[in-house]
Amino acid sequence: MYTLLDGKLISEQIKKEIAEEVQQMIKAGKKRPHLAVIIVGHDGGSESYVAGKIKDCQICGFQSTLIRLEEDVTEQRLLQEVERLNEDTDVDGFIVQLPLPKHISEQKMIEAINYKKDVDGFHPINVGRLCIGLPCYVSATPMGIMELLKRYRIETSGKNCVVVGRSNIVGKPTAMLLMQKTYPGDATVTICHSHTKNLKEICQQADIIVAAIGQPEFLKGDMVKEGAVVIDVGTTRVPSTETKSGFKLKGDVDFNEVAPKCSFITPVPGGVGLMTRVSLMKNTLLAAKAEIYEKNG
Amino acid sequence: MYTLLDGKLISEQIKKEIAEEVQQMIKAGKKRPHLAVIIVGHDGGSESYVAGKIKDCQICGFQSTLIRLEEDVTEQRLLQEVERLNEDTDVDGFIVQLPLPKHISEQKMIEAINYKKDVDGFHPINVGRLCIGLPCYVSATPMGIMELLKRYRIETSGKNCVVVGRSNIVGKPTAMLLMQKTYPGDATVTICHSHTKNLKEICQQADIIVAAIGQPEFLKGDMVKEGAVVIDVGTTRVPSTETKSGFKLKGDVDFNEVAPKCSFITPVPGGVGLMTRVSLMKNTLLAAKAEIYEKNG
Repeated sequence: MYTLLDGKLISEQIKKEIAEEVQQMIKAGKKRPHLAVIIVGHDGGSESYVAGKIKDCQICGFQSTLIRLEEDVTEQRLLQEVERLNEDTDVDGFIVQLPLPKHISEQKMIEAINYKKDVDGFHPINVGRLCIGLPCYVSATPMGIMELLKRYRIETSGKNCVVVGRSNIVGKPTAMLLMQKTYPGDATVTICHSHTKNLKEICQQADIIVAAIGQPEFLKGDMVKEGAVVIDVGTTRVPSTETKSGFKLKGDVDFNEVAPKCSFITPVPGGVGLMTRVSLMKNTLLAAKAEIYEKNG
Repeated sequence: MYTLLDGKLISEQIKKEIAEEVQQMIKAGKKRPHLAVIIVGHDGGSESYVAGKIKDCQICGFQSTLIRLEEDVTEQRLLQEVERLNEDTDVDGFIVQLPLPKHISEQKMIEAINYKKDVDGFHPINVGRLCIGLPCYVSATPMGIMELLKRYRIETSGKNCVVVGRSNIVGKPTAMLLMQKTYPGDATVTICHSHTKNLKEICQQADIIVAAIGQPEFLKGDMVKEGAVVIDVGTTRVPSTETKSGFKLKGDVDFNEVAPKCSFITPVPGGVGLMTRVSLMKNTLLAAKAEIYEKNG
């Protein structure tokens, strides 16, 4: 019988821990952590993600600032806004919600953010520091995955971990974290992707699988060995008549087939997605406390 | 019958290519590429590495500057020297030869170097950009390995590559490069290390093995499948009565056992070591041509 890695339970626990810490900070005369979010345009997914982030800030006792720019904003105007937030000493951390309209370079925007306020952990300095094993803002999904492994005390040392997907925001950093010299870490890590030829055989040998492909129900029962730990990062929206919103979230794992073979597995929804959300709050708290970088300039 | 991946031949070829390009640059009225090297103390290994780098500069037609500081130099004094080179517009790139004496933080020194002149590719920005897949200074050993794969037209796409060793300067960046969406790249990459439990079985399944453990003759014949490509990064000095210097370089691969099973294999010496050396020259040329980063400030 498998155990669910309950992202809802754990993320609520973490939010409570953060809220308590913020209360202590306020009592000690410190200012509230302050997250700013820039949203460009009115993409449905982005709107709902951003609404979630603002709501999480309220729950955690953070101040939040939402900056709305229209779809046709120029790159230069957006850069100005980033610059303004870089210099605003009241803002501890901020993010530019992705994706951005095609006429704006996402990479340019990411690099324009002061890495000391880069609570998304996308700036090359934070990515490099993660790689080297130095303190940094870890991007939200990999951080959420590590937190789940920790809270459920899942052993990673010497385990065969297979990460399916090599994206910059999930696959690569998750692989880097799983191999680092700490816990969670010390795992033997294999990174698979679209060019991998023997994916089924590789997954069958894995003690831990992180599925981050973006293809609904890609990972089937016959690809997983008995007792495996399966982390499902997928959140593809598929049309559905069962929900009010008209869509349903599907993971990269065929849960019905895979779960019975697992020791631990994340559900979708209620797994990694909620851990990703709460990780942004953790980074914002770290920024407010200047735990990663000293505050200057 | 195996083919030797001849680092001597290839590195000499590359040095010739660089020297020709520099001649063209001079003809076009441009200045010579200029590499500066800071060496602290009199470590035997460092002395000989640095001498090699200065000699390579001569062969390539580069200007070189060697800055010697004594073993007891203060961290602050060394930082001043780094700052001076950051600001010296005539110097295209520079390195601080590692290791440094214990009273000086290597990481602090690496981060003090302007990443635009960081031809060793150790600065977090260059590491992060490598990870993300952006143009950057790739550190010398991984770059040398990629160059060998390229020049011998070794297919990497969809191949099972096993990197043994997770160091920041070899294992991790080599893994990152082997999985990137280009050639060489698109490989399925497994990173093994001291905590890996089934190393022998993992290596036996590898099409390409990069051995970067630092243990002489670690990789034995029974760990390698027929037809594998084996890249030996090891260069441990062992005492020897056969050489004038009194030591001999040993690789991480038991060459006599492993070579007969290989399609391609690097010798030690004469393999990756020389490719590492020439990669610093390539980065210096890239710096002089401002191919990675624009020159400013």
